[in-house]
Amino acid sequence: MTTPVKDVRNLTIAYIGGGSRGWAWGFMKDLAMDADICGVVRLYDIDREAAQNNQIIGTKISAHPEAKSPWRYKVADSLAQALTGADFVVISILPGTFEEMRSDVHAPEKYGIWQSVGDSIGLGGFMRAMRTLPMFVEIAEAIRDHAPEAWVVNYTNPMTLCLRTLYHVFPGIKAFGCCHEVFGTQKLLCAMLESEHGIAGVERHELYTGVTGINHFTWLTSASYKGYDLMPLYKDFADKYYETGYLAGKDDNWMNNHFACAHRVKFDLFRRFGLIAAAGDRHLAEFMPSWYLRDPETAHSWMFSLTPVDWRIKQLGERLQKSHDLVSGKEPLEMKPSGEEGHLLIKALLGLAPIVSNVNVPNRGQIPNLPMDAVVETNAYFTRDRIEPLMAGPLPGELQTIIGRHVAVQENTLRAALTCDRELAFHTFMSDAQMTLGLEDGKKLFDEMLEAQKKYLPKEWFE
Amino acid sequence: MTTPVKDVRNLTIAYIGGGSRGWAWGFMKDLAMDADICGVVRLYDIDREAAQNNQIIGTKISAHPEAKSPWRYKVADSLAQALTGADFVVISILPGTFEEMRSDVHAPEKYGIWQSVGDSIGLGGFMRAMRTLPMFVEIAEAIRDHAPEAWVVNYTNPMTLCLRTLYHVFPGIKAFGCCHEVFGTQKLLCAMLESEHGIAGVERHELYTGVTGINHFTWLTSASYKGYDLMPLYKDFADKYYETGYLAGKDDNWMNNHFACAHRVKFDLFRRFGLIAAAGDRHLAEFMPSWYLRDPETAHSWMFSLTPVDWRIKQLGERLQKSHDLVSGKEPLEMKPSGEEGHLLIKALLGLAPIVSNVNVPNRGQIPNLPMDAVVETNAYFTRDRIEPLMAGPLPGELQTIIGRHVAVQENTLRAALTCDRELAFHTFMSDAQMTLGLEDGKKLFDEMLEAQKKYLPKEWFE
Amino acid sequence: MTTPVKDVRNLTIAYIGGGSRGWAWGFMKDLAMDADICGVVRLYDIDREAAQNNQIIGTKISAHPEAKSPWRYKVADSLAQALTGADFVVISILPGTFEEMRSDVHAPEKYGIWQSVGDSIGLGGFMRAMRTLPMFVEIAEAIRDHAPEAWVVNYTNPMTLCLRTLYHVFPGIKAFGCCHEVFGTQKLLCAMLESEHGIAGVERHELYTGVTGINHFTWLTSASYKGYDLMPLYKDFADKYYETGYLAGKDDNWMNNHFACAHRVKFDLFRRFGLIAAAGDRHLAEFMPSWYLRDPETAHSWMFSLTPVDWRIKQLGERLQKSHDLVSGKEPLEMKPSGEEGHLLIKALLGLAPIVSNVNVPNRGQIPNLPMDAVVETNAYFTRDRIEPLMAGPLPGELQTIIGRHVAVQENTLRAALTCDRELAFHTFMSDAQMTLGLEDGKKLFDEMLEAQKKYLPKEWFE
Amino acid sequence: MTTPVKDVRNLTIAYIGGGSRGWAWGFMKDLAMDADICGVVRLYDIDREAAQNNQIIGTKISAHPEAKSPWRYKVADSLAQALTGADFVVISILPGTFEEMRSDVHAPEKYGIWQSVGDSIGLGGFMRAMRTLPMFVEIAEAIRDHAPEAWVVNYTNPMTLCLRTLYHVFPGIKAFGCCHEVFGTQKLLCAMLESEHGIAGVERHELYTGVTGINHFTWLTSASYKGYDLMPLYKDFADKYYETGYLAGKDDNWMNNHFACAHRVKFDLFRRFGLIAAAGDRHLAEFMPSWYLRDPETAHSWMFSLTPVDWRIKQLGERLQKSHDLVSGKEPLEMKPSGEEGHLLIKALLGLAPIVSNVNVPNRGQIPNLPMDAVVETNAYFTRDRIEPLMAGPLPGELQTIIGRHVAVQENTLRAALTCDRELAFHTFMSDAQMTLGLEDGKKLFDEMLEAQKKYLPKEWFE
Repeated sequence: MTTPVKDVRNLTIAYIGGGSRGWAWGFMKDLAMDADICGVVRLYDIDREAAQNNQIIGTKISAHPEAKSPWRYKVADSLAQALTGADFVVISILPGTFEEMRSDVHAPEKYGIWQSVGDSIGLGGFMRAMRTLPMFVEIAEAIRDHAPEAWVVNYTNPMTLCLRTLYHVFPGIKAFGCCHEVFGTQKLLCAMLESEHGIAGVERHELYTGVTGINHFTWLTSASYKGYDLMPLYKDFADKYYETGYLAGKDDNWMNNHFACAHRVKFDLFRRFGLIAAAGDRHLAEFMPSWYLRDPETAHSWMFSLTPVDWRIKQLGERLQKSHDLVSGKEPLEMKPSGEEGHLLIKALLGLAPIVSNVNVPNRGQIPNLPMDAVVETNAYFTRDRIEPLMAGPLPGELQTIIGRHVAVQENTLRAALTCDRELAFHTFMSDAQMTLGLEDGKKLFDEMLEAQKKYLPKEWFE
Repeated sequence: MTTPVKDVRNLTIAYIGGGSRGWAWGFMKDLAMDADICGVVRLYDIDREAAQNNQIIGTKISAHPEAKSPWRYKVADSLAQALTGADFVVISILPGTFEEMRSDVHAPEKYGIWQSVGDSIGLGGFMRAMRTLPMFVEIAEAIRDHAPEAWVVNYTNPMTLCLRTLYHVFPGIKAFGCCHEVFGTQKLLCAMLESEHGIAGVERHELYTGVTGINHFTWLTSASYKGYDLMPLYKDFADKYYETGYLAGKDDNWMNNHFACAHRVKFDLFRRFGLIAAAGDRHLAEFMPSWYLRDPETAHSWMFSLTPVDWRIKQLGERLQKSHDLVSGKEPLEMKPSGEEGHLLIKALLGLAPIVSNVNVPNRGQIPNLPMDAVVETNAYFTRDRIEPLMAGPLPGELQTIIGRHVAVQENTLRAALTCDRELAFHTFMSDAQMTLGLEDGKKLFDEMLEAQKKYLPKEWFE
Repeated sequence: MTTPVKDVRNLTIAYIGGGSRGWAWGFMKDLAMDADICGVVRLYDIDREAAQNNQIIGTKISAHPEAKSPWRYKVADSLAQALTGADFVVISILPGTFEEMRSDVHAPEKYGIWQSVGDSIGLGGFMRAMRTLPMFVEIAEAIRDHAPEAWVVNYTNPMTLCLRTLYHVFPGIKAFGCCHEVFGTQKLLCAMLESEHGIAGVERHELYTGVTGINHFTWLTSASYKGYDLMPLYKDFADKYYETGYLAGKDDNWMNNHFACAHRVKFDLFRRFGLIAAAGDRHLAEFMPSWYLRDPETAHSWMFSLTPVDWRIKQLGERLQKSHDLVSGKEPLEMKPSGEEGHLLIKALLGLAPIVSNVNVPNRGQIPNLPMDAVVETNAYFTRDRIEPLMAGPLPGELQTIIGRHVAVQENTLRAALTCDRELAFHTFMSDAQMTLGLEDGKKLFDEMLEAQKKYLPKEWFE
Repeated sequence: MTTPVKDVRNLTIAYIGGGSRGWAWGFMKDLAMDADICGVVRLYDIDREAAQNNQIIGTKISAHPEAKSPWRYKVADSLAQALTGADFVVISILPGTFEEMRSDVHAPEKYGIWQSVGDSIGLGGFMRAMRTLPMFVEIAEAIRDHAPEAWVVNYTNPMTLCLRTLYHVFPGIKAFGCCHEVFGTQKLLCAMLESEHGIAGVERHELYTGVTGINHFTWLTSASYKGYDLMPLYKDFADKYYETGYLAGKDDNWMNNHFACAHRVKFDLFRRFGLIAAAGDRHLAEFMPSWYLRDPETAHSWMFSLTPVDWRIKQLGERLQKSHDLVSGKEPLEMKPSGEEGHLLIKALLGLAPIVSNVNVPNRGQIPNLPMDAVVETNAYFTRDRIEPLMAGPLPGELQTIIGRHVAVQENTLRAALTCDRELAFHTFMSDAQMTLGLEDGKKLFDEMLEAQKKYLPKEWFE
């Protein structure tokens, strides 16, 4: 279990999906600006050109005057090459293209089923899982064979099922999943402290928040800042802005930004369940029955946006352009921290500085009334070569009903994706919380959505 | 735990709801025709006149030439009087009247939600639980105080929640719930043996069927007759009659009989899940999403009936008339076994003849992937003063998803009924599998249905 | 899971250890005298001559005028040959010879540790496990490869660990273990009914006894005969004979018979724990601390015998002689039932007649406060192709302490036997309830006992 | 669950056993030297004079020039008075006197059973529990009635059972137990870093150690300092000093100091189990079979001392004298930190500074293969009004066997102490790991030891 002392100035990170446009850049900057660790990052991507561009961008970042650690970047030719000898593995891939995602998100709309994101759960999340999980089977096998001792950080969605697959294929894997949605809610609490109580300048890591739930449907069971209990303060806050939403501290209006929200769903959930839902409203809405997603007007009245895939495609085009401009030097590098914690968790796992943070790992009892082995999101204590989840305790009954159902559906989704069992897949699809169709329409939609991503599915589905 | 040897010719049975018209008469006949046990039955009913009528009818039954044991019948003035010294307690009450049930079943229809029974789960079952569970709190307390050692047989719906309440209030209670729905499916297998394989005259107790699930949504995991495995036979059977339904052996067409069905839902569920759903199609349909209950036409196409409460009221009128005629002697007594097993279970618990039968009791691990303490229906071995459930093993994933969700909703229903917590009650109501409404319409319907049974609810609801 | 209808007149039974002298003969007679089932028994034994003798004896039994079913007997040349196509597998082997057992039982005596049997647990049981479990690994693999659907009945000791190994190696195995120790205690209750209450002629299968525990340390939690609760009767019985022991109904005095006892240990345990220990006193004593086995005098005062291995060797000689005499015809066959239930359980599993009996199978929750997967002995319901354990419920605290400790030691014993890990083996050996030695003497004894059976151990132990 | 913001300069601490000579003084100094919190400490003791002396000493401490917070000290007349309005409760009592402890420790010696401490488990610990637990019933009831929201810190032994009792009586209590034995082993690791690796000046809180087990038998499953894995270093360390013991950094030789040890037991356990036992050798030895405690010579050879009660009595005399001298001013106050963490945990629970530390609380799954509700010692994260245990994961099999047995015995000890059930008590006494006697001698010793503390036992024991 224990490994010899690592040379923290000579680490090897394998980056699967290393051609990522956007997220990777932030990670490379975080690495560069941290003086404690250094080494090489091996970029592996099925889009080799994207990886090569990132090698150039990464090298520029390392050479930036504000950089403290000169990380090296290399394109890897294969998963095996990227992984062999790696101390850490980062997984951040896009499964399929936005064309498949267009089907995930929009195909159900003609049957009156609306999704605000479509990448975690729901009909879109289900379909995305069908094409993503086989990829994660391959990745898990490669890690088992080439880097069984490495720590593996996943950022890919559907987060829960990606991790579930990694552990299913290679139970000895040391993998965890990171997601910044909880951070956003912590920042909302900081904003509340400033706008409502005049306490400015508090940073989210100065708060302590008890975290429980599953990815994109996490909940804060407690929140405090120094001696203050933030829960009663949040109650007043939620009441005050229940009707109008809370828009302070945003660059722009929620209507212009598909990821923004005015927290009305969050406030409504607080009034119903007494806990602080800790994700963007777009995500939260998808985990409930069709309360907030009945139709676009309902979503509008709750002040959050449905994210059209066309917007994503347009936005990708901009990032592609930016990639080229960064490579060519047309656009100068701007060194600012990403706000993510990946590099901090890596340092904690190296033994440099312990940290408590929320993380996705298999349930070993940290949430006793969810099934063992289901992937859950709670706090954990990161120390040298160890992640020890904090006991979050049982979920309250109302939430257990809702979350337990998602977990059960996810478990069947895993089995369907790995066995290509159409019958099981269809029933799982029909079990989703957002599903309102009868058997006949349901079957039509299922077949259509599966067909739409045929290119990325195992052949067994169509035999 | 153990009790002294009982005098099996001098037993005391307390019958709560002893004014029952119909079910009680069958039970009294079963007792009379059994030569092994005798004693006194104390009839307690809030409708004292009904109990008095049953005292007269019971006495006539005991005096019938075909009777073998002259049970005596006495009206009890109070729960305490009925229970003190009782060896067995039978509970079979109608919570409220058919007017409340009219709201349970029909109020959701104007919002497009259809129910075929409305007494177990769903919106109707939920509301019925709100008025029934407080009555069971009172009954449980009375048993705890006056007959803590008695065995308690419940026949009242919602079965699961009635038993759950008894154990919640008095954990030491020796209670179980009996339901004949599984018997019906066993008889269907006997009919299949005759019509498809020419094996006539098999009685249901000659089969062995593995049983698992929750009341009204039970499943046969195995079925055999002598050396024959009935599961592959049932597969052919379900395929053969999938389109047409199976109508053999019925007195009348399913369209004329609100309790009959052509088993098309059952066959469809078999083809989906590989197990034999073991309840009437009317019940089964309510536990699934709106696949079979989308609208009356859908139900019609699946060849089962929605049971209108008007039909129940009419039918009650006929039974009232029959009660008077039996009392007056205008209608002669017809001595035939009810087909129920209550008296056989009583005999087994007295040590006279062990029996394996399906029964509703709290989960102690017989279904390991449902929560402990949830009331489940599996086989159990009845011997002297003991009910030992047989290990049914884990439910398959697809069913666990569906049943686990109902169990979670039931648990919240219990808490709502006992705490009169409107917020919790509303969320639980909204969590039901049949619920298709948004928050606003949902709230309107909830308020209306609660109001409709105000007379039978604790006052705390309206404070 | 389900299998096609079997031809119950054309079954195949693989008998591993088919050269057994004694036990096999009873089984062959039971088969012959049962009119319902017939077929072929394949005898496999590493002592081929013994198997050949049993083929001759079995054939004579089938030809006996009182035989109703002419089973055929064939010697098999290999495990694979015996198993291929088998419907049932019987395992009844002697691991090693009595020379190894001499070390198991008597080596500890020079250190003041006395054992009355030495084949289940304790220092002798531990050592026996070291040589037996690797054999069961081989058997489990052969069953997995050649007869994965067969039902497997084990009679070999250490029962618990033999079964545990079968399931560990091949989790899909359909194996169970039978032992007649509980029957003996049921017969004691019948004798009690006759001598104390004048109720003669009751047979043990007319009683109902709740069974829980682990093999050779099983407990009756309830006992009834018709309407009678036998527990209070047993209390009086235990008190009456506490000092003198109970000797009625025995052919000979306990001092002359190494398997007999006067039940004083059983009575003492009842007075301490309130439940009926259900095995011979020789076995029971080994599961407690050195209360009853401090030295031979203590055992003597409790009126049970230590079984010397010389007696076993002498007794084997007599059975060898008997084998020759049966083969040669010098001794005529006497057809009487063995009193075992193996053939009845086989019939139940064929669907011919369900039966409730005590059986050793992995814990799936039937005893919730013992670890899952540990092999426990409780009642089970045997029907066509299914064994469904009855929920026995949690053990009382005092017994859980004692049994839980044995289970934990057994689990480590399994790991030690399969990994040949000397350090783990030694600590497990030192953890035994009978161990009174310090580290130094303990190590000497451990090494000596392991060496004594070197011939039958994997070589890894000595590398 | 949540409480309003506390005024951290105006806290109320109830100190039960507030007459403590020694431990209380350290706590009062820790409080005085901490600038962050202040308030009043109410001293309650059945020895009122002792409490009055501590009031004087505490007041002096608050007035010391190095004190940063002027805590006030008041003698309380009753438990109720001490508790009402308390924010925190400290429990540190001596149950009975050293005369009872003389029996606990020394009575078994004439039967050849030796104990090195006799206050946690073993025969002495069992007897101590009999008199202590009824006192904790009283304390728990008082806390429930007068300070249900207060955080309760226990320092009294037997730690595990004292806490178990508090939760048994008042399940809603917010109690935890602190013990410095783990600190001692952490300091040993620091000493190792200095003497073996030349890394001087490391403080124990700079290490991270994974902790699991039960009080006084805790184990470090990992240990790191910055990036270093200390486990392989400890392996070399244990090997090097296995024969000689490690004596560096001690003021005096282990032979002169009854609490000192040379860690030979610790090293031996490491070589056997691969984990670092984290308590003094005197404690560790008592949790194993008689390996290290066979007789005084054996203990001597392992280089730890048996602590005679006469030494404790002499030492108490010195502390009494010191108390008088502190009160009279004859001895000046020396302000130095106690090395305990009580005040830091209090600050963490106030939300001032989160901390990870080892703590005794009921098992909620942090050690999944020990029973739920058993009191275990693992790390926990202390934040505002919350203690969240870190998941320690399952114990390795060999340790689970040993610890699981102690837990089971402790559970029966609790029941015996609370029910005064002599039969249960005797069997529990006989189940102890150190017990080597037969039934007869065992009974004699049991009766004698119970009699010896008659004055402090409930009368029910002798009725």
